[in-house]
Amino acid sequence: MAAFELDERLARDTVLVTVTGLCQLRVMKDGRWPWVMLVPQRAGVTEPFDLTPLDQAMLTFETNMVASALKTVTGAKKINVGALGNIVSQLHVHIVARSEGDPNWPGPIWGFGTSQPRSEAEMQQFIKALSQAL
Amino acid sequence: MAAFELDERLARDTVLVTVTGLCQLRVMKDGRWPWVMLVPQRAGVTEPFDLTPLDQAMLTFETNMVASALKTVTGAKKINVGALGNIVSQLHVHIVARSEGDPNWPGPIWGFGTSQPRSEAEMQQFIKALSQAL
Repeated sequence: MAAFELDERLARDTVLVTVTGLCQLRVMKDGRWPWVMLVPQRAGVTEPFDLTPLDQAMLTFETNMVASALKTVTGAKKINVGALGNIVSQLHVHIVARSEGDPNWPGPIWGFGTSQPRSEAEMQQFIKALSQAL
Repeated sequence: MAAFELDERLARDTVLVTVTGLCQLRVMKDGRWPWVMLVPQRAGVTEPFDLTPLDQAMLTFETNMVASALKTVTGAKKINVGALGNIVSQLHVHIVARSEGDPNWPGPIWGFGTSQPRSEAEMQQFIKALSQAL
């Protein structure tokens, strides 16, 4: 079986926070929303139902743990969770904190406008707050 | 505890296929994509992490079962799964079969254009095929 290797586009767009068990937890460099991503460290998987049942349960547990922490950190009105993969096929789950009036509210974040990178200071602050809440 | 009651907008936009255990499986009337929805029959829940751990596991199981069936039925390139809830807060999970060149590919389906209802014949055919694959 091939070893897991992070897709190069996901690597370029995100920063590693920690490994939550099954997944890498990564923060998007795009700072328009509090936006993180879980990437199961399994090679060749594109759909959640391609994972083993145990891995499916782990992914759910880790997704909900991170979603809950993100809500605590941001006080957001709603957490959006999505696994699309139309562009990058390697399985990855987006977890995004949404608030009324944020860019494209109440529409989706995907495919909207162009990335606005966080400053290094904002990135470090976000990672610290998220890590403490986990 | 209040009894579960389906949100009126979800009721208006969808047709019931079956109850998968925890959830109602419903088909969107919008026929631009093969598009279904799971609605956990729990009152007052807006986020997946508000569900009990058992219900979270059930929702994952049912989501992946339906996603796999939808892939089989449609032969789609990618299944998109999303729980947004920015407009309708009652927890609901979208499961959508995507193919290259479909409306807004490879962008998201949410917030794109206007609904184009299926004919009654198409709806019945889709429900029958999906039910057989489940």
